Amino acid sequence: MAKYKRGRSIAPFARRDVIFDMNAFSYRVEALQPSAIREILKFTADPSVISFAAGNPAPEAFPVEEIKRITNEILTETPIDALQYSVTEGYAPLRQWIRDDLTKKNMLGKDDEVVITSGAQQAIEVATKEICNEGDVIICEAPTFIGSLNAFRSYNAKLVGIEMEEDGINTDKLERALQKYHRVAFIYLIPNFQNPTGITMSLEKRKKVIELARKYNVYILEDNPYGDLRFAGDDLPTIKSMDTTGNVIYAGTFSKVLAPGLRVGYMCAPSNVIAKAVVCMQVSTVHTSILPQMIAYRFVTENDFEEHIHGLKEIYRKKSDLMLGKLKMTMPKSIKFTEPEGGLFIWGTLPDGDMNYFCKKAVKNKVAVVPGNAFLVNENAPCLSFRLNYSTPTDEQIEKGVDILAEVARDFYR
Amino acid sequence: MAKYKRGRSIAPFARRDVIFDMNAFSYRVEALQPSAIREILKFTADPSVISFAAGNPAPEAFPVEEIKRITNEILTETPIDALQYSVTEGYAPLRQWIRDDLTKKNMLGKDDEVVITSGAQQAIEVATKEICNEGDVIICEAPTFIGSLNAFRSYNAKLVGIEMEEDGINTDKLERALQKYHRVAFIYLIPNFQNPTGITMSLEKRKKVIELARKYNVYILEDNPYGDLRFAGDDLPTIKSMDTTGNVIYAGTFSKVLAPGLRVGYMCAPSNVIAKAVVCMQVSTVHTSILPQMIAYRFVTENDFEEHIHGLKEIYRKKSDLMLGKLKMTMPKSIKFTEPEGGLFIWGTLPDGDMNYFCKKAVKNKVAVVPGNAFLVNENAPCLSFRLNYSTPTDEQIEKGVDILAEVARDFYR
Repeated sequence: MAKYKRGRSIAPFARRDVIFDMNAFSYRVEALQPSAIREILKFTADPSVISFAAGNPAPEAFPVEEIKRITNEILTETPIDALQYSVTEGYAPLRQWIRDDLTKKNMLGKDDEVVITSGAQQAIEVATKEICNEGDVIICEAPTFIGSLNAFRSYNAKLVGIEMEEDGINTDKLERALQKYHRVAFIYLIPNFQNPTGITMSLEKRKKVIELARKYNVYILEDNPYGDLRFAGDDLPTIKSMDTTGNVIYAGTFSKVLAPGLRVGYMCAPSNVIAKAVVCMQVSTVHTSILPQMIAYRFVTENDFEEHIHGLKEIYRKKSDLMLGKLKMTMPKSIKFTEPEGGLFIWGTLPDGDMNYFCKKAVKNKVAVVPGNAFLVNENAPCLSFRLNYSTPTDEQIEKGVDILAEVARDFYR
Repeated sequence: MAKYKRGRSIAPFARRDVIFDMNAFSYRVEALQPSAIREILKFTADPSVISFAAGNPAPEAFPVEEIKRITNEILTETPIDALQYSVTEGYAPLRQWIRDDLTKKNMLGKDDEVVITSGAQQAIEVATKEICNEGDVIICEAPTFIGSLNAFRSYNAKLVGIEMEEDGINTDKLERALQKYHRVAFIYLIPNFQNPTGITMSLEKRKKVIELARKYNVYILEDNPYGDLRFAGDDLPTIKSMDTTGNVIYAGTFSKVLAPGLRVGYMCAPSNVIAKAVVCMQVSTVHTSILPQMIAYRFVTENDFEEHIHGLKEIYRKKSDLMLGKLKMTMPKSIKFTEPEGGLFIWGTLPDGDMNYFCKKAVKNKVAVVPGNAFLVNENAPCLSFRLNYSTPTDEQIEKGVDILAEVARDFYR
């Protein structure tokens, strides 16, 4: 009897002649590695390292006093509700607030429902679990968010990355991929201030992708964690708001507009997709931790939430301006940087040379950035880019860090 | 080109000739239904219905004032830590406390590690995702916890239920199943005050199952949510404490000893299993909500946690005594009830007749219990049992509810 080696690309349960191997993991996760960013972040445990590698909101963006007041009120007024088991769908008042907010933004389709998740990441994982069979194709922007790539990998999806242009995904190549692959579960898109590139998809391309989703009968998974954090340029409608045919599954979150440690996000999608997502959550987290949901609800209703978001935009606009200005002033002109209109990230691209070596030299000189290949479907593909974050470092760290990076770059291209 | 219909038992990704069907779900979850208990719980939304159907801790078991004080301290002293992104492994001080606690209980193997999860349910789901390939066998007690059954189903495990006896799983039948099935991912066991039966596995059987796990080279997934809530009889060592060979994955939780709404549980297992679990969690919840983790940590360290648990045991002992006494007094002798030494549940078994009809009559008369077939691998298998919970109802509700149930029973066996 053959000993079954896990991690193969064939369906193991078609094989009845193999023995279970306790020393291996399921073929889903056998090859799954911790996020490469985590490896970089290890260097940043050294306090002398300036980290442009994280994706954390600025600590000064947290409304600490207000959250403290609210939490105290909740635990005074309705402590049992905050501590007892709750419903998987999410805290009813918060769910209703989200529905109302999405309605205001013209995003709630008439058959749409909402489930509250442990961050947008859980919405992405659950959507994959319920929609994508092993071997189904997921088309995504290249590069894209590594947490989503790994969620897709953890269900053995076949990943197809489509080149990013200045105005978003190359829609001609997207259509060719839709023609080529017949079992596409969904197209994964981050239209606003994309992670990692900071690029925003143009209105024309938004219209084009929803048209393609309809034509080829596939879902779009629209991930919009930074959408509210636009500090320049004009608002663009979400893809979800253009969806009249139930093709869009939307992932939103309070992580970037309130606090990520709370782990409160949501999925908005056609009611049958939400109903199945609820069943998936019943068997994983049962429900999103209820006190954080109640905190989020009171915060958005008892405060001027728009004013709060306005304040956040100011913080990020300033930090982005500071980093971009500094980069332009000090870095060799041959290194190009995106100029995001919101969000948390800038994408730098070297003219040539060994990007990974450049990143290693940077971290040796006490500045951490994320090598761009971490965000690719194939991490070994050639890549000249790297990701910079301006939300987490202080202004002083931004100035000093870019100076160091410029020195490394000048030395690199000497 | 054939339209692929999802929900089939063959590997769909072996079929390259099929088109993606947007109107179906992945074959993992296509057939997955909401927990049958949830359907019962719908009746209990009617406030005139006395519910013995839930599994919630008694509201009076929550240390409300202490949690309020602690939470206020956290948000005063270290608010940013409570709101910012955290590490997937869990809040380091709580993780260390759990390690120390398990060490005290002789449960932490020398290669073991701990990850903090969103309740024990997430530990169970993640263990399944990382260990169990589609079509692998999971052996469990019959009946067993429906949330776990559905987690296993959501990864297309083949479920094999082994009959429960008064002293736990039938180990002869367990061994025969291990001989018969060669790809057993793990044996799922709830050794203490099992949900739904309230049965506790004997020391002999605990020794036997770990011996069988070693002999057949499979994992045991030991789920122990109620272990600390023993109010009668003598403590028995956990299976994990007898594990010298890394065969046991242990799921623990603060849900029943502190508050389930916090969603704080943990998995303790060999370090390679934990490392892969961490990667799985990175792509789902990223990390367990951090404020609840900090609350749990301060609670267990700043209070006399043993004294707190002692208080809980008293609550449940009284409620269990009340319900069992009342059942013995009023119910027809032909209906048998287990006498749990801890936990939250009693298991009733009718001598004959239509158990589902009995449960329906009960709910019509305003008392909800859970039909036992909900806890079976095959929900359509014959079943004469039902589950009663004594932790959630008040004393008055227990007395009144059992009176009604007895009336229904007398009418039923008239």
